[in-house]
Amino acid sequence: MNTPRHPWFLREDMALLTDFYQLTMMAGHWKSGRTGQAVSFDYFFRSLPPNTGYAVAAGLEDFLNYLEHLRFSEDDLAYLRSLGTFEEAFLDYLRGFTPCCTVRAVPEGDCVFPSEPVIQVEGPILEVQLVETALLNMVNYQTLIATKASRVCLAAQDDPVMEFGLRRAHGPDGGVSASRAAYIGGCSSTSNVLAGKIHGIPVAGTHAHSWVMSFPSELEAFREFARLYPDRCVLLVDTYDPVKSGFPNAIQVFREMRAQGIPIRPAVRLDSGDLAKLSKICYSMMMEAGFGEPLIVASNDLNEDLIADLKRQGAKINSWGVGTQLITGYDAPALPGVYKLVAIHENGEWQPRMKVTSNFEKATDPGRKNLVRYYDAAGQPLGDVLYLESEAWPGEGAIPGRAQKHPHAARHLENAVSAKSLLETVFEKGKRVRPPLSALAIRERALAEQKRLPEEYKRLRNPEIYRVLLSPRLGEMKDRMLINPEGTA
Amino acid sequence: MNTPRHPWFLREDMALLTDFYQLTMMAGHWKSGRTGQAVSFDYFFRSLPPNTGYAVAAGLEDFLNYLEHLRFSEDDLAYLRSLGTFEEAFLDYLRGFTPCCTVRAVPEGDCVFPSEPVIQVEGPILEVQLVETALLNMVNYQTLIATKASRVCLAAQDDPVMEFGLRRAHGPDGGVSASRAAYIGGCSSTSNVLAGKIHGIPVAGTHAHSWVMSFPSELEAFREFARLYPDRCVLLVDTYDPVKSGFPNAIQVFREMRAQGIPIRPAVRLDSGDLAKLSKICYSMMMEAGFGEPLIVASNDLNEDLIADLKRQGAKINSWGVGTQLITGYDAPALPGVYKLVAIHENGEWQPRMKVTSNFEKATDPGRKNLVRYYDAAGQPLGDVLYLESEAWPGEGAIPGRAQKHPHAARHLENAVSAKSLLETVFEKGKRVRPPLSALAIRERALAEQKRLPEEYKRLRNPEIYRVLLSPRLGEMKDRMLINPEGTA
Repeated sequence: MNTPRHPWFLREDMALLTDFYQLTMMAGHWKSGRTGQAVSFDYFFRSLPPNTGYAVAAGLEDFLNYLEHLRFSEDDLAYLRSLGTFEEAFLDYLRGFTPCCTVRAVPEGDCVFPSEPVIQVEGPILEVQLVETALLNMVNYQTLIATKASRVCLAAQDDPVMEFGLRRAHGPDGGVSASRAAYIGGCSSTSNVLAGKIHGIPVAGTHAHSWVMSFPSELEAFREFARLYPDRCVLLVDTYDPVKSGFPNAIQVFREMRAQGIPIRPAVRLDSGDLAKLSKICYSMMMEAGFGEPLIVASNDLNEDLIADLKRQGAKINSWGVGTQLITGYDAPALPGVYKLVAIHENGEWQPRMKVTSNFEKATDPGRKNLVRYYDAAGQPLGDVLYLESEAWPGEGAIPGRAQKHPHAARHLENAVSAKSLLETVFEKGKRVRPPLSALAIRERALAEQKRLPEEYKRLRNPEIYRVLLSPRLGEMKDRMLINPEGTA
Repeated sequence: MNTPRHPWFLREDMALLTDFYQLTMMAGHWKSGRTGQAVSFDYFFRSLPPNTGYAVAAGLEDFLNYLEHLRFSEDDLAYLRSLGTFEEAFLDYLRGFTPCCTVRAVPEGDCVFPSEPVIQVEGPILEVQLVETALLNMVNYQTLIATKASRVCLAAQDDPVMEFGLRRAHGPDGGVSASRAAYIGGCSSTSNVLAGKIHGIPVAGTHAHSWVMSFPSELEAFREFARLYPDRCVLLVDTYDPVKSGFPNAIQVFREMRAQGIPIRPAVRLDSGDLAKLSKICYSMMMEAGFGEPLIVASNDLNEDLIADLKRQGAKINSWGVGTQLITGYDAPALPGVYKLVAIHENGEWQPRMKVTSNFEKATDPGRKNLVRYYDAAGQPLGDVLYLESEAWPGEGAIPGRAQKHPHAARHLENAVSAKSLLETVFEKGKRVRPPLSALAIRERALAEQKRLPEEYKRLRNPEIYRVLLSPRLGEMKDRMLINPEGTA
C-alpha cells in the first residue's frame, strides 16, 4: 500500500491532457526554431478560499506520476494529425518527446500562502508549456481539498473525521484524488475503497438506509447487522424516526448483544434532523440504558461551520462524516492557481520576466527564486521571504524585505531565530529524484506543520494574514519592471 | 471518434470505486442468504441548482462503460483480504461476480426535473447496491455540468461558447467528463485535447500570455503567431495594456497580413479588465482601421450572469470562453442526486418500499415506475406524470394526478395532445442493449429538447416550476405509506 501502483492511477495516456493552445504554441516555438529555449515558470495561487488563513500543499506526487509517464502514443499522434493543424515534422518531434525538465517544489503537506512559488518548472519552453494544464488541474484541486479538510478537522477538534464524498465528487478520480487530499489534510479515513487501495488510506463505513428498508422491520435489520458485524456495529438510526424507533431498537439490539456476552460500545449514526438535539437525546437514552459513553457519528451535508456550531451547542457527537461540502470545496470549488513565465534564458543567462496588467496587484514576481521560511524562538513560522535564486539569505535576526504587492514599501520580519528553504528539487532533467511518498507520510508532515502554525492563522473567521515578503533586491527589481514591463529588467 | 474507446476511459479497474459500506452490506446480504434477492432502485435528484428551471441528463454512457467492465481483479481481492473484514468465501463470490442487472434510463440530453426517476437499476441486491456510488459519482457531476453549460449557452444567445476549464477541474477526468457534459449542454468546443480525442469534441484555443512574454516585444510575438497560424490567428491583447499596446499591435499585424494578400478576419481575445468597454474600443479601432466586423473573444471567470450582463451592456463580444465557473458548477458544485430502494421482490411479486423521515417532503416515491411526458398541441412539454409500472396511462386529454409532495391533493395536466414514455431499457441482464452513443448525437438531442422546452422554464432568474405529478394510484399508495412506512403498502 505504500506507493501508488494502480494502473489506472499511473497517469499514463495523459499526454493529451492539456489545452489545445499549449500544442499550437509548442508547434509555434518549434517552427520558430526555439525548441531548445529554456524557461522557468512558477505555480502559485493568487488568493485563499474565503475565511481561510493558510493552504495545505497537495497534488505534487500526482503531477510527478504524470510527468514520469509523459509520452505521445501513436494513437495520440493519429488524433493530432486528424485535426489538420500540425505538420508531420512536428508530430515526429512529439513522437520522440521525453520529459527533461527540472521541478522544484514545496513538499506536499506544508503550509503555503498566496503568491508563493509552490512549484517551479524549468526546461525547454515546449515541455514547460505542455505540462501547465495537468499541473494546474492536479495541484489546484488537491490543494483546495487538503485545505478544506484541514479546516473541517480543526472544527472537529480531536474527533475523527471520515471523508465520504465520492458520490458527489467530480468524476472517479475527482473522488480518488480528493480522498487522498482529504487524508493529507487531516481526515482519518475514507469511504472510498479504491482510494484505500491506491493510497493506503484507512477505509470505513456503517450501513445505508437501504439496509434497513430491505428488511421487514428496523429491529430485524439492526439485529442482523449486529450479528454480522459485532465488532463494527454502528447502526443508522434515522430511516424512520430516531427517537420513537431508531434509538429504542438500537438499545434493544445492544442489550441482546451484551446478554450474549459480546463486548460492545454502543454506536449509532445520525444522518438527518436536529443533530444537536437528537445526539443529546441519544446520549441520555444510552446512558440510562446502562451503557457507557456511546459513539455518535453525525453526517448530513456538514462543513467546518456546522461542526463548530454543533460543538458550541454541546452536541454529543464524537465522530463526523463529511461528504459533499468537503469533496467539492463547496463554498469555493476552485483554487485560483496559475502558472506564469518568470524567466527566460538568453545570451547565456536568465532574464527575469513579469506579467503586468492595469491592476498592479496582479503583477507576477519576476525571476527564478528561492522561498525561505523564518521561525521564532518557539519554532513557529514568522513569515516567508522570496529571494532571487542567486541571492544569499540571512539566517536570523531582523530580516529586511519589501511588501509583495507594493514593492517600493520596506517591511521586515523581527527576531528570526532560524530559517528553512522550502523548495526541494523533486524531478531533475526528466527523472524523479526520490521514490513517491506515501499519503500517510505526507499526512504526518501536514499535521506537524499545521500544529506549528500559530493559532491566529487557523481561525475559522478573519484569520491573520501571513507575511510573505520580497527580498530588498527582488523588490527593487519588481518595482523597476512595473514601470517598464516589456523587455528585461 | 464516434465511440469512447480510450483505455483510460473504459472505466476498467473500477470495481472498488464504491463506498466501503456497500461492500460490508453486500457481505451482509450474502451471509444472510439474500444473494438472489431482487430489488429496484431509483436515481433522482431532490432539487435543481439555484435559479435553474431544468436539468440536462448526462453521465449515463459513462456509467454503462463502468457496468460493462465491472469485475473484481485478483489485486482488488488481495486488497479486500488485507482489510480483515471479509471472509474468503465472500471474496470467492466477488471473484465470480459479473453484472446481471437491468437499467432503464431517460436518454442523455433530455430535460429532467426534481424527483423524477432518471435511472432505474434492478437486479440482485448485492449488485444494485455495489454500483450506487459510481452511478452517483458519474451522473450527478455530468448532469450538473451539462445543465450549467446549457444556461451559459442560453445567456450567450447564438454566440459560440468554448469550454476551457480543465486547469480548474476536479482532477483529470473531472476535466474530461466535464468537457463532454459541457458539449452536450451546448458548448461548441473545448480546450481539452484528451476530451477531443476521446469524445470527438471540436478542440479550440488561441495563445497564452506566456507566448507574448517569451518574445522581446508584444509586436514580435503577434507577428510570429500570425505567420505561423494565419488561418487561426486570434491574438491575446491584454498581456500589457490592451488600448495602448495590444490593439494597436494587433491592428499593425493584421494590416501586414492584408498587405501580404492573406485573407483575414481580425480576431482578438480579451482576458481581463472591463470587457464591455474594452470590446467596444476594440471594435471601433478595428472598424476605423478599415477591417470588417472583428471576432472578439472574451474570457475571465465568466458565467451565465456575467455574459447576460455584458450582452445587456452592448459589449461587442461575439465568442465566449468559459472555464472555472462552468467546469466546477461554481455557485452549486454538486447536484443532490440520490439512489433509493423503491421495491423489493418478495413472495413472487414486487413490494413497494419508501423512505420516510420527519420531513414528509423528503419521502421517496415508492414502487417501480414509468415516467411519461405530456405535450401540448404545439409539441411543447406540459408536465410529467409518474405511473406505477403495472399501470396503463392515458395518452391525451385532461391527465389526472396528485401533487408529488402532497399526494392527497389532486392535480392535473390540461389538454394533453400526445405522450411519451421517457425511460428506455439501456442495459439488460448485464449487457448493453445498444452501442454507445456519440457525444455529438447526444448534444443534438439535448439542443432539440431544450428548444422544445417553453421559455418560462429557461429564464435565468425565477424560472417557472415544471409540473411533475404522481398518477392517482401512485399518489394514493404514497399517501397510505406515509402513514405506515415500515412494512409493505
